Amino acid sequence: MRRQYRCLLAMAATGAWARLPSYCSAHEHLPEVLVMLGDTRLFLCTIKGAGVGFEYTMFLNAAECSLHCLFQPGPYLEGHPSLIHGGAITAIIDGMLGTCTLAVARKVMTANLSIDYLVPVPLGAAVLLDGHAERLEGRKVFLSCHVQSVEGDTLHARATCLFIWLDPTEHRTREEDGGR
Amino acid sequence: MRRQYRCLLAMAATGAWARLPSYCSAHEHLPEVLVMLGDTRLFLCTIKGAGVGFEYTMFLNAAECSLHCLFQPGPYLEGHPSLIHGGAITAIIDGMLGTCTLAVARKVMTANLSIDYLVPVPLGAAVLLDGHAERLEGRKVFLSCHVQSVEGDTLHARATCLFIWLDPTEHRTREEDGGR
Repeated sequence: MRRQYRCLLAMAATGAWARLPSYCSAHEHLPEVLVMLGDTRLFLCTIKGAGVGFEYTMFLNAAECSLHCLFQPGPYLEGHPSLIHGGAITAIIDGMLGTCTLAVARKVMTANLSIDYLVPVPLGAAVLLDGHAERLEGRKVFLSCHVQSVEGDTLHARATCLFIWLDPTEHRTREEDGGR
Repeated sequence: MRRQYRCLLAMAATGAWARLPSYCSAHEHLPEVLVMLGDTRLFLCTIKGAGVGFEYTMFLNAAECSLHCLFQPGPYLEGHPSLIHGGAITAIIDGMLGTCTLAVARKVMTANLSIDYLVPVPLGAAVLLDGHAERLEGRKVFLSCHVQSVEGDTLHARATCLFIWLDPTEHRTREEDGGR
């Protein structure tokens, strides 16, 4: 896993890939939305305690609308004994593909998510998620994602996802955002 | 919501529907599996604090392989500001359909989950999930689920799910389990 992480950091050093911060609230990356309802938390960052919940780091290539996510699910994400809950895997896929799409289009909503669970992810394992936009049809953004072992020898899951672009006239580019 | 809950309790009183306990670990409802890896927690029961995470109660009709789930997602399941995260909705669907299938077949694994998100679930709302097995084809169990407002006037999401029955010779009935 360390080797894979070093490889992702080297990609980020080229300037094409940006390592994203971990947001604890949607308000941090959507500051223009002023609806605040007291103590809310972004679902993927809710579980406190080092290493027990969703532990991940994401690397975005906005120009290609691609995102790599190194994900180490913790022991509080258990489903079947000693295996990660399928819902937790779907949640990280939805979160990372949403992040990928939000980076190029401000306002999107998930419309469909379909996931094939091929090989269970054991507790304690780390996996690599590769997601990217396949195509754009009007307001529809089609994406896909593979969940593989960090060694690359096991395909744990694959997913397709459809997001609806709520306002296609509002196009975000990295330049408009000041390279953020 | 209180009216809906009373209605579900009345159904349970008929004997056809059983109100299920909330398990905090998969080991509690799969005691025959002895793999223990220290402090693990069932994903849906991980978030501590009254009312902030996955708050739900399930009612099972094992004879019909149907399950109703009254679900009140808490503010720690936020996705877009003031809305519930799509991954959290998928997680409760996977969990409730898994519970439904486990009740009639001891060993199952999720193979595919496809969900259409139709109307976002606002933070603070309660929803009713209705899941049931559509058909059985060999080792494949096909299920569907609707996520509706408790008033029944809004369909928030619909999902189909495929579980693989790992050992069809091992059939669980409520009688064999002592009516549990």
